[in-house]
Amino acid sequence: MTTTTNRRITLAARPVGAPKPTDFATVDEPTASPSEGEMRLRTVYLSLDPYMRGRMNDVKSYVPPVRIGQTMEGGAVSVVEESRHPDYSAGDIVYGRTGWQRYAISDGKGMRTVDPSLAPISTALGILGMPGLTGYVGLLDLGQPKEGETVVVSAATGAVGSLVGQIAKLKGCRVVGVAGAQAKCRYAVDILGLDACVSHREPDLADALKAACPDGIDVYFENVGGKVFDAVIGLMNVHGRIPVCGSIAHYNDTGPPPGPDRLAGAMRVILTRRLTVRGFIIFDHRHRIPDFAREVSGWLREGSIVYKEDVVEGIDNAVEAFLGLLEGENFGKLIVKISDDPTGGG
Amino acid sequence: MTTTTNRRITLAARPVGAPKPTDFATVDEPTASPSEGEMRLRTVYLSLDPYMRGRMNDVKSYVPPVRIGQTMEGGAVSVVEESRHPDYSAGDIVYGRTGWQRYAISDGKGMRTVDPSLAPISTALGILGMPGLTGYVGLLDLGQPKEGETVVVSAATGAVGSLVGQIAKLKGCRVVGVAGAQAKCRYAVDILGLDACVSHREPDLADALKAACPDGIDVYFENVGGKVFDAVIGLMNVHGRIPVCGSIAHYNDTGPPPGPDRLAGAMRVILTRRLTVRGFIIFDHRHRIPDFAREVSGWLREGSIVYKEDVVEGIDNAVEAFLGLLEGENFGKLIVKISDDPTGGG
Repeated sequence: MTTTTNRRITLAARPVGAPKPTDFATVDEPTASPSEGEMRLRTVYLSLDPYMRGRMNDVKSYVPPVRIGQTMEGGAVSVVEESRHPDYSAGDIVYGRTGWQRYAISDGKGMRTVDPSLAPISTALGILGMPGLTGYVGLLDLGQPKEGETVVVSAATGAVGSLVGQIAKLKGCRVVGVAGAQAKCRYAVDILGLDACVSHREPDLADALKAACPDGIDVYFENVGGKVFDAVIGLMNVHGRIPVCGSIAHYNDTGPPPGPDRLAGAMRVILTRRLTVRGFIIFDHRHRIPDFAREVSGWLREGSIVYKEDVVEGIDNAVEAFLGLLEGENFGKLIVKISDDPTGGG
Repeated sequence: MTTTTNRRITLAARPVGAPKPTDFATVDEPTASPSEGEMRLRTVYLSLDPYMRGRMNDVKSYVPPVRIGQTMEGGAVSVVEESRHPDYSAGDIVYGRTGWQRYAISDGKGMRTVDPSLAPISTALGILGMPGLTGYVGLLDLGQPKEGETVVVSAATGAVGSLVGQIAKLKGCRVVGVAGAQAKCRYAVDILGLDACVSHREPDLADALKAACPDGIDVYFENVGGKVFDAVIGLMNVHGRIPVCGSIAHYNDTGPPPGPDRLAGAMRVILTRRLTVRGFIIFDHRHRIPDFAREVSGWLREGSIVYKEDVVEGIDNAVEAFLGLLEGENFGKLIVKISDDPTGGG
C-alpha cells in the first residue's frame, strides 16, 4: 500500500471573483509512510463547504489563508490504513482536517474517532459534524427562538440550514426557508417540514417573504447576504436576533459592491427595532459538542429530523463540485466520495 | 397667570434632508387652565436631542412621528404653577415629555418629581436623565467592557458619549473618543480624562484611530455611523461589541447614500471577528433606572465624573439650536432655558 500514489488538489492561484478550475492544481506523488507516532489515512469522504472560498483569499480572517501550492483545506472522514500511533489501529474510522487528498499522514492531532455503529460515517461531515454543530449553536444559543416565534433560514436545504429549520420546528416556531430551485423549496416544506419556503429567484422576494411571515420575523439565520438580507431586514420584529453564519452571495466579491449603500439603512433598522446581529465561528463553541451530539443523535434516531447528502464521486470531480457549491447547485450536504467506504455506506 | 400666552413650536412641514427653519412654526395661544386632576406647568428647561430628527419623518419607527401642526416632542423640566392634581403641589419641580412650549397642562401621566436638593434640576435632562441612562445601559449592559479593554465612543463630548467615556475609564478601560472640533477633543482628554480623542475631520481618520488604539477596539459605542463606523469596524477585535445608540451622520439622509455598498464588508467583519452589534432604545431598559440613579449620582457627588451643558436662552432660539445640534455645533448637553429657574440654576 505504501507505493500507492497520493493525489491532492492544491491552490494554484488566488481567484479573482468566482474561482476557475485553473485556480486549482492536481498533484500526484508517492504516498508517504508513517513515522513512529503517526498513521497513514485513506480519505473516504471529503467535505466541501462554502467557508473554503474565504481561505483562498489572501486576507486576514479567523484563520490564515491556504498558501499557493498548499493542499486545499477541508474536513474528511478516513480509514486508518497503517498506524504507528498508540491511540489508533488499522481499520479505525477517523475525522480530521486532512484536506483535499486521497491519503494523509497524521500524528493524531485534531483527529477523532467516528463510530460507524451510530450513523453512516459520512454524517461526521454534515448533520453530526461541523455543519450540524453550526446550525445547532447558531440557532439555539444565538438565535434563542421561542415557541410561536417566526424563524427564517436562508440556504434552507443546505448542510447547516436544513438542521436549523428542523430544530426551529421542534422548538415550536413558524419556520420559513429561503432557497433557490423550486425543487429545494418543495423539499424544505414536504420533507424538512417547514411552514413555507420562498425562492430567492422570485421577482419580488420581499413581498413573497412578507406573505410567508404574516407576524414578521423574530430570528433570521443568515447564510447568504445580498438581496435575501434586504428582504428580511425590513420584516424583522422588535428584539429580533440575526445569527450571522455566512454570506455566500458575497464570497466572490472582488471589492465593495456598487451602490446604493445599504449599511446606514440596515443600522437604522438594527437600532429602531433593537436587533441583535451576532457573527459566530463554530470553533468558539466547542463546549457545546456534548449537548449537540446527544440531542441531534437522539432526534436522528427517533426520526424527528432527516438529512440529505449530495455525494460526488472521485477526487477529480472535487473542483467542479466546489464551484457548483458556490453557485448553489448542490442539493444537501456536499460530499466527495474519494475511496471505498469500508462500512458499506455512500 | 392664566392669561399668560403660551408659545409653542410645531412641526410645519416634514423636512427633506436637513431641516430648515421653515419646517417649524411658532404658535401663540392663551394658556389653558388645569381641570380637576390636572396641573399647569411652566417649562424651565427643554431638552434638545438628536432622536427628535427621526420624529419629524413620516416613517415607521419605535414611536409614531410628530404630526404636522403638532407641538414638537421633547422632555422638559418644569415648575408646577397651579395644581389640581393630588400628587403635585405648586412649586414642585417635575420632569415629563411636555414638548417645545412655555406652558403645558398635564394629568401627571409620565411625570416624575425632580429633587432640587440632589443636583441642578437641568441634570434631569442630561447626566441624570434619559441621555445618562442611555450611556450607562448601552455601555455596561450591551458593551460589557472589561478592565484593560479598549472602548471607542463617538460623539464623545455629547450628552450620552461623555458619560460613556467616563464610565469606561472608571471600569479600567483604555478609552478613545471621536469628536469633531479640536476644542472638543481637548476637552475629552483634559476634562473627561479619556486616553485619546480623534477628530473625525482628520483626513485619515482610520490611521489616526489605529494609532490611538494599538490593541484594537473591544467596544465601540456607536452614535454616529458614516465614516466613523468605517474607520472603527476594521479595528474591531474578535468578540467585540457594538451597542448602536444612534447614527446622526444619517439622520438627514433622504434615501440610501450612493455606493459603494458597505454592508457586505461590514457583515464580513461581524462574522469573521464574531462581533455582537446590538441596537437599543432606552425605554426598554427602565428597570435599570434605580441602579443608574444610585451609581451615577454617587460618581457625580464624589467628583469622579463631570458633565457639561450647552444652555441656549429662550424658546425662540430652540429651532436654531436644534439645527446646530444636527451639525455637531453644540458642546455638551444641549438645553434650552425657557423661563426662570426657581432653584436659581442655569
